[in-house]
Amino acid sequence: MTTPAYNQLTALQSRLHRLDHLGAIAGWDQAANMPPKGNEARAAALAELATLTHRLRTDAGLRDTLQAAEQEELTETQRANLREIRRDWRAANALPESLVVRRQMATSRCEHAWRSQRPANDWTGFLENFREVVAVGREEAQRLSDELGCGRYEALMDRYEPGMTTAEVDRVFGDLRQWLPGLIERVIERQSREPVLTPQGPFPVEQQRALCGSVMRLLDFDFEAGRLDVSTHPFCGGVPEDVRMTTRFREDEFLGSLMGTVHETGHGRYEQNRPRDLIEQPISLARSMAIHESQSLSFEMQLGSHPGFVGLLAPLVRDHLGDQPAFEAGNLARLLTRVKRGLIRVDADEVTYPAHVLLRYGIERALIEGEIEAEDIPALWDEQMQQLLQTDTRGNFRDGALQDVHWPEGLFGYFPCYTLGAMYAAQWFATMRRETPGLDSGIARGELAPVFNWLRERIWSQGSRWTTDELCRRASGQALDPGHFRRHLEARYLAS
Amino acid sequence: MTTPAYNQLTALQSRLHRLDHLGAIAGWDQAANMPPKGNEARAAALAELATLTHRLRTDAGLRDTLQAAEQEELTETQRANLREIRRDWRAANALPESLVVRRQMATSRCEHAWRSQRPANDWTGFLENFREVVAVGREEAQRLSDELGCGRYEALMDRYEPGMTTAEVDRVFGDLRQWLPGLIERVIERQSREPVLTPQGPFPVEQQRALCGSVMRLLDFDFEAGRLDVSTHPFCGGVPEDVRMTTRFREDEFLGSLMGTVHETGHGRYEQNRPRDLIEQPISLARSMAIHESQSLSFEMQLGSHPGFVGLLAPLVRDHLGDQPAFEAGNLARLLTRVKRGLIRVDADEVTYPAHVLLRYGIERALIEGEIEAEDIPALWDEQMQQLLQTDTRGNFRDGALQDVHWPEGLFGYFPCYTLGAMYAAQWFATMRRETPGLDSGIARGELAPVFNWLRERIWSQGSRWTTDELCRRASGQALDPGHFRRHLEARYLAS
Repeated sequence: MTTPAYNQLTALQSRLHRLDHLGAIAGWDQAANMPPKGNEARAAALAELATLTHRLRTDAGLRDTLQAAEQEELTETQRANLREIRRDWRAANALPESLVVRRQMATSRCEHAWRSQRPANDWTGFLENFREVVAVGREEAQRLSDELGCGRYEALMDRYEPGMTTAEVDRVFGDLRQWLPGLIERVIERQSREPVLTPQGPFPVEQQRALCGSVMRLLDFDFEAGRLDVSTHPFCGGVPEDVRMTTRFREDEFLGSLMGTVHETGHGRYEQNRPRDLIEQPISLARSMAIHESQSLSFEMQLGSHPGFVGLLAPLVRDHLGDQPAFEAGNLARLLTRVKRGLIRVDADEVTYPAHVLLRYGIERALIEGEIEAEDIPALWDEQMQQLLQTDTRGNFRDGALQDVHWPEGLFGYFPCYTLGAMYAAQWFATMRRETPGLDSGIARGELAPVFNWLRERIWSQGSRWTTDELCRRASGQALDPGHFRRHLEARYLAS
Repeated sequence: MTTPAYNQLTALQSRLHRLDHLGAIAGWDQAANMPPKGNEARAAALAELATLTHRLRTDAGLRDTLQAAEQEELTETQRANLREIRRDWRAANALPESLVVRRQMATSRCEHAWRSQRPANDWTGFLENFREVVAVGREEAQRLSDELGCGRYEALMDRYEPGMTTAEVDRVFGDLRQWLPGLIERVIERQSREPVLTPQGPFPVEQQRALCGSVMRLLDFDFEAGRLDVSTHPFCGGVPEDVRMTTRFREDEFLGSLMGTVHETGHGRYEQNRPRDLIEQPISLARSMAIHESQSLSFEMQLGSHPGFVGLLAPLVRDHLGDQPAFEAGNLARLLTRVKRGLIRVDADEVTYPAHVLLRYGIERALIEGEIEAEDIPALWDEQMQQLLQTDTRGNFRDGALQDVHWPEGLFGYFPCYTLGAMYAAQWFATMRRETPGLDSGIARGELAPVFNWLRERIWSQGSRWTTDELCRRASGQALDPGHFRRHLEARYLAS
């Protein structure tokens, strides 16, 4: 049977995939390579591309083509792909071209200035650009919410986590807010009796870079299809055929960039292992950002801080950084599971991390829904840090609201994905353990294939074939159950 | 007065400038960063962009818009810009979209495979891809020659050197072929009596990289608007706001990459100093490739091997690579002007370099005009090398026809520009000397500003305002006179 309308849509998706490739590489380059005077032209070029792809996604004929395709006789795979094509179309068509350009210019300017404003602790300077980013975010939220018939913040969140509602997040995060501060308290109290040795630097950057490379190889990252470079804010970008991970190095501390690299490797392997046969189609895309984070956190937390895995890490650390007592496996494991109330989200351990997300979720949701203004953020930030982590942040914008790249880039609605991802990751490992007897002792022996095979089969190879909920049920036999995350934390931090 | 048609054309040129920006960065990345498995997707993405910009350049309405704009009341600047817009339009419209895509796929595949075929000396493997590149080149030549009403090779050359004819090249190169072999003979004979010390390596890559950086700063390269990286074949890419130069390093030899970097810095400064007010318009583009090469050769040869400049170079070499007798300024100057019959064009001195160009010009012209086939190249290559440089190249494809990136990339018609550029560069310096008493002694004292100011004022800031011939007359008071080049070589290599 012929499917002319469907074929027309897939041809357009192939074009978009190829054009988005150029945007992804230019965007990575902007963060990893570009000298300062290149920014204006780069912003204009990326805005031009955004305008162009937006135009392609909003072509007036597409509405009819989509309807025609939905009447065609399609395979199950084609139907799933068409569902994702419609989702993409709906998101694009809710926004006028002028808004797309305005967003690109605002976020590009704000993000670029932020790179020097953050070290300068310059909140006032940041506000000047950020107000426009917020204005754009609110307009996007309003338009998307009109289109989707849901709340404004929920409409932004839907871009990253389709199907997730604020009601569901409120339920899960409300529960978390109940038990998390008490758990943090108990873990810190318990760990205060466990001495831990601090590694003694300096750790030369080149040696750290080589260590990161070795660990990425241990984690089966394909260096023929990707790279590791340096940027201010680590991310995993590029394209599935050529994944561009970044990290950052400090000479006085190496575990941050090492585990950051392990984290990004989880993202990277998900991308490198997306289904290849339809790589240019939306059905091949990673399912959602929470599922993406579930991969990076499977690597960084479930596997990375696993005592068996740390036993594999220790000799690599010694190979690259020399020997010292702090590099003994048991001590490294204690370092990697050390719980500490800190200022920086990306440096946070897995127990306090959700507190940072609760804070950001509350603030950005209120900001988008117009309940607060950008200038109210520092006071709210401090109030929440006091409440959740008993930490004073007054006047320290650098390590406060200026610490993340998300807001300068206008990525409102993303933060909840981190903690949803941590919950999914706990659920994946609980399932793996149930299905694979001896999983943990195998990890200690360097048998990582069962972990990677499980993730490849259940998550990576599935792309966007199923809704998130269906993917979760097929992978683990049940819907998202945050109880796995609580049990994981209790088992790792309070048992024995 | 209003100029609606002209304005419509300039708006399109701005769009093209921005889209080409993405292609330039992705192209640079392909050479400098990309891992092997990324190539297929990158080639598809660049082909998609080429198709897109080709479509924009060949929009059916443009013919009328151009005619309408030519009837509008325009300033002299606008008229010059319009002339360049028409040139761009004519070149693009001579080629059908299918050919543009075919070219991109063929050259991307051939260039990528060439990167490993060259070290493997694999001429047969190269031929498999290269035949298609030649077929595409011939079809381009036929179509462009029909459009321009000139010879086929001349039509390809016109893309790089507008206004230049094969008759003119034959005249200039015919003259060169008369006196060059004799001059090479005399210089080599004379230099055989001048002992020279060879620098003793190894020269660690990181120290060479730092040395190149210092020399680029001495040459006023703006690192806020550009970078230096590594690729197999050095080039100067990127965009005028963000120039991406590449070099390559060998641990046993440093002068090659150092002077290669000086060469690319000449290209880079031309790009960085193009007129800013119309940066997105064709009138801001570098005038032609021979004029571009005249800048890189002004830097590398006229200035770079100037005994006064070498006096500035010597302390920088010692700072970065340590002291040794070979680094004494007089010895470095002898090293930089050492004439040797060699296999590799990019490593050639300025005296033997034109011989390499004569060889390539003869072969690629015959290839495009169908007088020979790709498989005939090695025999012809060897014959010409015997004749011009008395060198046997049989069986050595790596250092023969596989040595240049131009053919795998389908850049037929480019090679003459190198030697035309050397001739222009000699003419610029002859003019500078005439107009600036004490230029040479000033260079020795580190006063490079008069050189840079002359080039900025006469060449860089002029963009494509004038035809090449007019630019040359305005800059130097006369048309291209190859006698300057001969006198330069005789003065530097045979006088005193």
